Amino acid sequence: MEAIKLDEGKMPVETKDGKIILIDQRKLPHAIEYFDATELEKMCFAIVDMVVRGAPSIGVAAALAMSAHLRDLALAGDRQPTLADLDAVKAKLDATRPTAVNLKWATGEVHAHAKKLIKEGIGKETFAEKIFQFAQDMLQDHLARNKKLSEFGQSIVPESARVITHCNAGSLATCGWGTALGVIKSAHLKGLNPRVFVDETRPRNQGSKLTMWELMQDGIPATLICDNMAGYLMNKNEVDLVITGADRIAANGDSANKIGTYSLAVLAHHHDVPFYIAAPLSTFDPEIATGSQIPIEFRNTDEVLQIEGQSVSLQGAEALNPAFDVTPNHLIKGIITEQGILRPPYTQSIKEALDRNSGERN
Amino acid sequence: MEAIKLDEGKMPVETKDGKIILIDQRKLPHAIEYFDATELEKMCFAIVDMVVRGAPSIGVAAALAMSAHLRDLALAGDRQPTLADLDAVKAKLDATRPTAVNLKWATGEVHAHAKKLIKEGIGKETFAEKIFQFAQDMLQDHLARNKKLSEFGQSIVPESARVITHCNAGSLATCGWGTALGVIKSAHLKGLNPRVFVDETRPRNQGSKLTMWELMQDGIPATLICDNMAGYLMNKNEVDLVITGADRIAANGDSANKIGTYSLAVLAHHHDVPFYIAAPLSTFDPEIATGSQIPIEFRNTDEVLQIEGQSVSLQGAEALNPAFDVTPNHLIKGIITEQGILRPPYTQSIKEALDRNSGERN
Repeated sequence: MEAIKLDEGKMPVETKDGKIILIDQRKLPHAIEYFDATELEKMCFAIVDMVVRGAPSIGVAAALAMSAHLRDLALAGDRQPTLADLDAVKAKLDATRPTAVNLKWATGEVHAHAKKLIKEGIGKETFAEKIFQFAQDMLQDHLARNKKLSEFGQSIVPESARVITHCNAGSLATCGWGTALGVIKSAHLKGLNPRVFVDETRPRNQGSKLTMWELMQDGIPATLICDNMAGYLMNKNEVDLVITGADRIAANGDSANKIGTYSLAVLAHHHDVPFYIAAPLSTFDPEIATGSQIPIEFRNTDEVLQIEGQSVSLQGAEALNPAFDVTPNHLIKGIITEQGILRPPYTQSIKEALDRNSGERN
Repeated sequence: MEAIKLDEGKMPVETKDGKIILIDQRKLPHAIEYFDATELEKMCFAIVDMVVRGAPSIGVAAALAMSAHLRDLALAGDRQPTLADLDAVKAKLDATRPTAVNLKWATGEVHAHAKKLIKEGIGKETFAEKIFQFAQDMLQDHLARNKKLSEFGQSIVPESARVITHCNAGSLATCGWGTALGVIKSAHLKGLNPRVFVDETRPRNQGSKLTMWELMQDGIPATLICDNMAGYLMNKNEVDLVITGADRIAANGDSANKIGTYSLAVLAHHHDVPFYIAAPLSTFDPEIATGSQIPIEFRNTDEVLQIEGQSVSLQGAEALNPAFDVTPNHLIKGIITEQGILRPPYTQSIKEALDRNSGERN
């Protein structure tokens, strides 16, 4: 597979001389700093503290961390890792963040491949090389899938579309081209002149910090808004389309994404503005029937009580900080994937897409 | 009329020895500082920069500033102010903020009373005393109306109600008891155990800073949320009621209020949660037929691009900052006023309430 060229300084997860290097997304857009997450403990911290974030990026980062850990175990010891080793490292990484499924999917892929390599009875050096290469290939595969997904997305972007997006589903979140932002970026490169309203996305402000940064780098017209302004704009007929990413999609199409996505979907529904999700198939969790079974992560309430480290409320104030919400399938006009745009009834279209995908990979 | 006792340190506008003293609401909740706005220029700055904010508080503050200015004109000169003087000072104050109508209503009241006093041909010392007393009486009248409105509001607050409110419609905004928060405060004092989810209300965070402060001072259980979490909570059946204030209400009930109120009203409608406005009759603008005629103030985009003075996006990033939006009458279950709870059809109920009010005052 041909590697996709990425803009300088926009690659959230990279490997260099066997190390795993992350862009520290906590520091953007004010500084581009790198974070060495080769050690398992460092990667766990990086995921929890959101040095790396975005469901697909987390997945790839975790796959690399798991494979690097297995590689180093193999090279340091006198034998290949055991199944117990595989289970332990997977469990440790999976526990870092509960909502996005790409994490568990990615560690599951590494787990399965490592198990296969162990069965083959290859030497520990070969094992070490092959398992790390496998995760690096996953990264490249992700990039290709994002681009394919973005191409499929073009059919739903009208010329000069005014699009609202929430959080960051761009290069930083997805290890490459982007999903929601990938669709917009491809439309821009095609000369369709999209223009984006960017929800700031409280409490972590991934919209104002990351999405604005990516769009401005790509020269795509972007206007920052507070999350509570989306309804105002829709009511003024200033929005043609809403596209967001997703962190986990149930078998029936119910989609978990950054907190605020559900409110945006309800507003879009009320104003008859089409609401789309863009996500690779690794975001789907066919083992979960509906969105009610998706675990929602509650993060530290300091994220709400403080902004940029400064208190905006009172000592001892109570706050709530659900990091995600679930948008029910009936509010979603379509789900843009690398197997085309899935339409309702989702239980059927999702199953078909996953079957096709699995057929192509086998 | 008996003066209503207010909690220490919570009076946003006060007079002392002929001076007009404001709590500097920009500094809350971290510091209680006072701002002398006796001079007209100082008051204009205070309103524009939101030292004093909240439609009813702005109205009372402007009435006091106008009367103090006319008083000082009279005392400094050798004659009573002229009609041209009245027009000039009213125009200057009215130009400070365009959306809230209480400002124009209040300066109109002072204008009419000053005109009447001038016609009576009283001496300039008597004029000076009477015109300032008139504005001080308006302040007391406001307090009484807030309490009355809050009493009427009790009929729509169920026991142990979980209420969402947006922005600040408490003592600070309304020169006394509060409108939306007044209803909640009265319910709390009656032992109805309301519990409040407070929208932080970006970009100025009046929710996290002012509403949380007031509720915590009053011992009312309060939980701070980001504006984009309201839909999540409604979807979980954790909200029984939404109450907000208003900055201007058209003859048909369409209501302008802090940006985000409209989105909240749409969400409430979608989840069948009753959405109420609480506002004194001075907030109504019967000369405006529908909400589309209400001018929306656009404030400096730095309020969106920066949080607490720190940049959260990029140099040169574009942003949008409408300070208000308009909620159409069909999304409003009722408007709580000092003349009872107005119900649809609003064109009729609003006219009747304004007529009753005007009858009582004459």
